Amino acid sequence: MRKVALHWIGNLQFVAADDNKHSLVIDTKQEVGGNETGFQPIDLLLVSLAGCMAMDIVSILRKKHLDLKSLVFDVEGERATEHPKRFTKILLKIKSNEEIPRLDLERAVELSRDKYCSVFSTLKNPPEIFFQMNRGEE
Amino acid sequence: MRKVALHWIGNLQFVAADDNKHSLVIDTKQEVGGNETGFQPIDLLLVSLAGCMAMDIVSILRKKHLDLKSLVFDVEGERATEHPKRFTKILLKIKSNEEIPRLDLERAVELSRDKYCSVFSTLKNPPEIFFQMNRGEE
Repeated sequence: MRKVALHWIGNLQFVAADDNKHSLVIDTKQEVGGNETGFQPIDLLLVSLAGCMAMDIVSILRKKHLDLKSLVFDVEGERATEHPKRFTKILLKIKSNEEIPRLDLERAVELSRDKYCSVFSTLKNPPEIFFQMNRGEE
Repeated sequence: MRKVALHWIGNLQFVAADDNKHSLVIDTKQEVGGNETGFQPIDLLLVSLAGCMAMDIVSILRKKHLDLKSLVFDVEGERATEHPKRFTKILLKIKSNEEIPRLDLERAVELSRDKYCSVFSTLKNPPEIFFQMNRGEE
């Protein structure tokens, strides 16, 4: 079981926290009334996916004792034009240092995609999503 | 088009950045070799979903000139026991101050779920996900 909490600060700003005392500010762009003080929620979906795969890839390449010196993900998400403007396509551009053999990098990405990455798998197999609503001391 | 970038710092630690100069550290738990210096990627999926819905709900309740004083999301994600340990169920517990009529809170949640929330919609309608791999100056 994973848990996070969000608290409303004001306007469209929230603070999110995990069970381990990490916290971050989320906000949104001025066009829709935000103050741009933190990541937009939609962008955190891309960070979640890339972060999950990136950690798998580092782990896999290190187990092979390959000389990983740099790893960069540039992630692009294309959205539908109409509400709810979901992501229709996500492109992950993954770049390592040149000493990592191409086949090993490709194999690490495949293993993450097909076997290990919980976020990729959640995006491909929709979870059930439930709501409970309460007010005040209810 | 939304864009984020991730740079590997060391061990299983990365820094993620958006196009607006916001950044955050991601890491993972010690059991799998991390140093717990930041949010886990899987938890950011919950933050992304809750943040998206929370902003919708604030916007909708304010348009109705309701006296929103507090809004808290407690989010729980249940994972499969086997790799890739995807989220099978996500529960969003949403709590406002007691002055918000129950029906208005429920209606705001429904509107976000069914019409506005891009993250909810992405989780329910899998996006296409593509990869490009490069090494060094390629």
